[in-house]
Amino acid sequence: MDFLYNNLIYLIPVMGLVGIMFMLGKSAWVNKQEAGDKAMTELSGHIADGAMAFLKAEWKILSYFVIIAGILLAWSGTTVQTSSPVIAISFVSGAFLSAFAGFIGMRIATKANVRTTQAARTSLAKALGVSFTGGTVMGLGVAGLAIIGLGSLFIVFYTIYVKNTGGDVNGESMAKALEVLAGFSLGAESIALFARVGGGIYTKAADVGADLVGKVEAGIPEDDVRNPATIADNVGDNVGDVAGMGADLFGSYVATMLATMVLGREIVSHDQFGGIAPILLPMVIAGLGLIFSIVGSYFVKIKNENDSVQKALNIGNWTSIILTAIATFFIVRWMLPDGTFYMSRDVTETGALKEGALIFDKTGVFESIVVGLVVGTLMSMITEYYTAMGKRPVLGIIRQSSTGHATNIIGGLAVGMESTVLPIIVLAAGIYGSYHFAGLYGVSIAAAGMMATTAMQLSIDAFGPIADNAGGIAEMSRLPEEVRHRTDNLDAVGNTTAATGKGFAIASAALTSLALFAAFVGVAGIDHIDIYKADVLAGLFVGGMIPFIFSSLAISAVGRAAMSMVQEVRRQFREIPGIMEYKAQPEYEKCVAISTKASIREMVAPGLVALITPVIVGFIFGPEVLGGLLAGVTVSGVLMGIFQSNAGGAWDNAKKSFEKGVEIDGQIHYKKSDPHKASVTGDTVGDPFKDTSGPSMNILIKLMSIVSLVIAPHLHHELRHSERLQKEIHIRSMITHTTDHNKS
Amino acid sequence: MDFLYNNLIYLIPVMGLVGIMFMLGKSAWVNKQEAGDKAMTELSGHIADGAMAFLKAEWKILSYFVIIAGILLAWSGTTVQTSSPVIAISFVSGAFLSAFAGFIGMRIATKANVRTTQAARTSLAKALGVSFTGGTVMGLGVAGLAIIGLGSLFIVFYTIYVKNTGGDVNGESMAKALEVLAGFSLGAESIALFARVGGGIYTKAADVGADLVGKVEAGIPEDDVRNPATIADNVGDNVGDVAGMGADLFGSYVATMLATMVLGREIVSHDQFGGIAPILLPMVIAGLGLIFSIVGSYFVKIKNENDSVQKALNIGNWTSIILTAIATFFIVRWMLPDGTFYMSRDVTETGALKEGALIFDKTGVFESIVVGLVVGTLMSMITEYYTAMGKRPVLGIIRQSSTGHATNIIGGLAVGMESTVLPIIVLAAGIYGSYHFAGLYGVSIAAAGMMATTAMQLSIDAFGPIADNAGGIAEMSRLPEEVRHRTDNLDAVGNTTAATGKGFAIASAALTSLALFAAFVGVAGIDHIDIYKADVLAGLFVGGMIPFIFSSLAISAVGRAAMSMVQEVRRQFREIPGIMEYKAQPEYEKCVAISTKASIREMVAPGLVALITPVIVGFIFGPEVLGGLLAGVTVSGVLMGIFQSNAGGAWDNAKKSFEKGVEIDGQIHYKKSDPHKASVTGDTVGDPFKDTSGPSMNILIKLMSIVSLVIAPHLHHELRHSERLQKEIHIRSMITHTTDHNKS
Repeated sequence: MDFLYNNLIYLIPVMGLVGIMFMLGKSAWVNKQEAGDKAMTELSGHIADGAMAFLKAEWKILSYFVIIAGILLAWSGTTVQTSSPVIAISFVSGAFLSAFAGFIGMRIATKANVRTTQAARTSLAKALGVSFTGGTVMGLGVAGLAIIGLGSLFIVFYTIYVKNTGGDVNGESMAKALEVLAGFSLGAESIALFARVGGGIYTKAADVGADLVGKVEAGIPEDDVRNPATIADNVGDNVGDVAGMGADLFGSYVATMLATMVLGREIVSHDQFGGIAPILLPMVIAGLGLIFSIVGSYFVKIKNENDSVQKALNIGNWTSIILTAIATFFIVRWMLPDGTFYMSRDVTETGALKEGALIFDKTGVFESIVVGLVVGTLMSMITEYYTAMGKRPVLGIIRQSSTGHATNIIGGLAVGMESTVLPIIVLAAGIYGSYHFAGLYGVSIAAAGMMATTAMQLSIDAFGPIADNAGGIAEMSRLPEEVRHRTDNLDAVGNTTAATGKGFAIASAALTSLALFAAFVGVAGIDHIDIYKADVLAGLFVGGMIPFIFSSLAISAVGRAAMSMVQEVRRQFREIPGIMEYKAQPEYEKCVAISTKASIREMVAPGLVALITPVIVGFIFGPEVLGGLLAGVTVSGVLMGIFQSNAGGAWDNAKKSFEKGVEIDGQIHYKKSDPHKASVTGDTVGDPFKDTSGPSMNILIKLMSIVSLVIAPHLHHELRHSERLQKEIHIRSMITHTTDHNKS
Repeated sequence: MDFLYNNLIYLIPVMGLVGIMFMLGKSAWVNKQEAGDKAMTELSGHIADGAMAFLKAEWKILSYFVIIAGILLAWSGTTVQTSSPVIAISFVSGAFLSAFAGFIGMRIATKANVRTTQAARTSLAKALGVSFTGGTVMGLGVAGLAIIGLGSLFIVFYTIYVKNTGGDVNGESMAKALEVLAGFSLGAESIALFARVGGGIYTKAADVGADLVGKVEAGIPEDDVRNPATIADNVGDNVGDVAGMGADLFGSYVATMLATMVLGREIVSHDQFGGIAPILLPMVIAGLGLIFSIVGSYFVKIKNENDSVQKALNIGNWTSIILTAIATFFIVRWMLPDGTFYMSRDVTETGALKEGALIFDKTGVFESIVVGLVVGTLMSMITEYYTAMGKRPVLGIIRQSSTGHATNIIGGLAVGMESTVLPIIVLAAGIYGSYHFAGLYGVSIAAAGMMATTAMQLSIDAFGPIADNAGGIAEMSRLPEEVRHRTDNLDAVGNTTAATGKGFAIASAALTSLALFAAFVGVAGIDHIDIYKADVLAGLFVGGMIPFIFSSLAISAVGRAAMSMVQEVRRQFREIPGIMEYKAQPEYEKCVAISTKASIREMVAPGLVALITPVIVGFIFGPEVLGGLLAGVTVSGVLMGIFQSNAGGAWDNAKKSFEKGVEIDGQIHYKKSDPHKASVTGDTVGDPFKDTSGPSMNILIKLMSIVSLVIAPHLHHELRHSERLQKEIHIRSMITHTTDHNKS
């Protein structure tokens, strides 16, 4: 066991490698499946080409960004003692791996979609097998790459800055290693922002455009080959829901580990600094979560046509969560030392603990992890309640559709606003509870616990758009009713998992941001963020406003792009004769090009807002005002994220309810009734809410926090820096004296 | 001059009395005007009756609330040393005067409306004269009562607690006087909340209900006598826009003065405590503003039919603002002592100034007042830009109406979100600037400066709904085209002033809340609110969520009430034969009853959220967490207020633009075109946004702050209280020592 303990650091990338091995195996299995007839492969080829075209266009722009930002980082790394130009290498690695993870996901999704359609010709069980395995490839790929990337870079920096210099694992040399490592998270999160926003604009511009002309004007069904925007719409599912979501969770996963590591360095235990264990713990938990996600994935299967797909997914999910929780219990006991802990920032210069400082132990750390798991689960459940068919919120919107478009909109907005209450209370309780159990490290490790089974969450999330695409291909290829019926079954489950996945993503982003916030405070060397100060309060106001302008930019981008799409589709219907009679093929690639161009162009402004604001505020007004800004962004971003995602989800399912017929005041209304038309308006408004601006909030708040963390050493004046150094040395010499005091 | 200086305290209510005298004169003049023919007086009688019915129903509920809350306050006043059961008397006085101010406004508005219609038969100049004089009665009444009430109660409490006990004007005895006086503001603001929310639900339920059945289903114009909901709609203008707005500004006006007085007590000047001057200053400035509002009101006049009404209002407004600013310059120089000031809370126990404490002088105080005036003006201008016809935001919504209901909604939401950016930057700069010039006292006196000409602002605001009602009466009485043309002219200006008034109301509420926040921190005896602490951060999250649930409750209340109204109107059209042929009169009173009942019932839940949350959080988690909650409410409330009010205003004017015809892509669209129908959807969604939930945000944030201020002494433990007392005595003895230090 001692050998294992001493070499734990090398075990971490190995666990990541295990994930990648399984991913390769599952990917090969998916590729081996039948891809269907010529029409099907042709359609899926169009979708794959469109998706790759978008990725290439996006990468081109992002490569300029990565080069420029990398150079700036390298230069700035030379200006402060606690950083290094090497941070640019972390940054580029993070950016590259994030993009690569998105690529893996999109590639498998565009292969699994048609194979799922083909499998659905045989049985539901087989279709679930193919689509979920496709999702698993994405999940394992993202988690595996993140662990390998972060784990191996940490080994490198640890070796260079700490081991080779004989530095202390809790001292300044480790601080430098972690500060350089933060570049990895910055790279990952930057790419995630552009992927989420760009993908979100792409998918909704195509969706809204296709619906407005196809369904409303031309009266042809969704996913009809005659609609020139239909391929773009299906590409959108992949670039938005698969690649965007993947990059989002890749970013959260990495940022959570990193923040916990930064805070872990500060842990002071019994009669020594905490050692390397609290720093390694988040990565080890992530590795365990990955392994148990693989185990859980084998529990996702059904036998008969009537078995519940949702239940199969739930069993897999709970298996991985429970196994991870149990394993975490033992690993925490084994890894962390006995006795009490506190954080070095809570020690005054005389060596006494500050008033209100928290003392905790390893049981508290485990309890915090449990808090994280509970928060994640509750957030998913609440999200499901607010967006599910047949529950009060959606039923209310349906009822309000009977008096027209306006009341449908009012109903959805009211539901979205109301839906913030419970998640915020859960989150506040989670912050309170995890802090109570293990201080700031507790808040951070709670996030790490919640994110541990990211591989499984993402497998379930990615399964949805694959099933959606499979249904689209079935419809476009005009396959038999039963095939479409099976893909619809999968798609319906996918809609629920999409909603719960968003709840999970928001919860994880919120906790991650708080962890980053706490890490930022430590690295910036401030010991409070006092909103009672006028400038900090001004920062809070400006921070609160950022999610509003960001959302405004994102949804108006969708509006503009959708209008271009509408014009192009109208032009094709007008100028290409024979489309309606299936005699001529529409120019799909033109619509794909419009979505691609618009999304790439429109993702720049919101991205820059997120990246540049913290830099400007931090350098002009200092770290405390920047802290106020971050708090404002986080609170307002979480609220706007929940509001928009849930309003959008509820509108969507209110509309879907009409497909089966709904009763309002004793009368049954179906598709094409006036209330249904009103519900379509809500659904269209909800599209950019739930798939563009809403989920972008996650990345916005994380990215602004990580940017702040990266610039924190620069905001920390040299004078104060040396003070901090002296203080740490001082604390070290005081520890034996304070130990007795703390035990009491 | 010395005599004047020593008796300044008695001059304050005298200035209020001057306002009331002018109000009575103007009111008598309005009453003397001709009220028109029988049909007109009958209609205006219906409106007046409906308005009084609402007021009576509202008062009945509120009297229970005032009695219960008064008893609780009286009881709680006995439990801490710094308060007294007398606070209940302040509370009841504040509640009574706020309700009475609303009554005055509504009474004059329901008399001025029909007299304006009658005057419009002669000339635009005369119609403006009557309607604006009606508005002035409201403005002077609100401001006069507020100054008389606050000023005389202050004299009473000052005499009892300070003068008669020989206490110090900057010591604990004055703190007690001000803490008891805070009950006045609590009473005023509580009534304001219910008036704003109840009135807001009333007016929009009637408006939306009348439009949905009348305009959309039955195809009859707005303000048609055949529509059973039309009287309720016109009553709504009075109870929402007149009484609600009046109570809102009455509350802001009082709260701003009070907060500044509380902070003024803490001012330490050159070589002594600051004396009573910084405490009296806000009331004196308010008194001056009132006097110069009267002066300004005589500049609001036009001569010819083609003169600009907007220009006349602007001249009156600027006259009062500029005269007040000039007078303030001299009064500040005269009242405040020379030398430097700082605040007692910024002094440590050893008598040294804390790090970062601000030292300022009376020039700084005047500069802060200027900052307040500039912030108020800029906020109004920005609001106008975002909601005015012919400007980019509204033109964008018009354009997006051409692709349907959904894109119209998306456009409006995007505009609303975008419109938060500039106001927040102005506000943040205002906080930063006013603090820079005169510390926390500066932030507070900036709000007082902005609010000084409340009488004029409110005159202009109340003029709008009077003109709107006058137009309604003209339409319902089927008066000649030229009459309606003149009232339309006034109404159009009224729409602009309504928008700018909302910008002003939000800016004043935000600054007022911050002033109250600062006062709360002092009274609660905490010296920081550190969002870096987990529990404070949790409070910030919960606080940020309150405006969302409050808005959700308010807009869904409108939705529900509007649906009852729709059903009633449909019933009357069905069951009463001859309405359409003008042969039978609809049962107006039934619709009035529905709006009244619904608004009274629905105002309770949001009201209780605002009142109870701070009490629960404060007593369970302590003052610092409550501070976090308040910061969250304020930031999120200001954002949601701006977002909702501006989105609603922009949708409204986008719809109105179609009445004159708008060009989209070379084609001109008029009323009843498809884009126009889409714009009606936006307008209907915007109705509760801009007139119910949006403006309620102002009162929500102020009320929660004032509740916190009132309970603050109870949160301040006795132990800590005696510490504070000792500290103040200590500081007093140190002052001469520190003076030299501070001069440097």
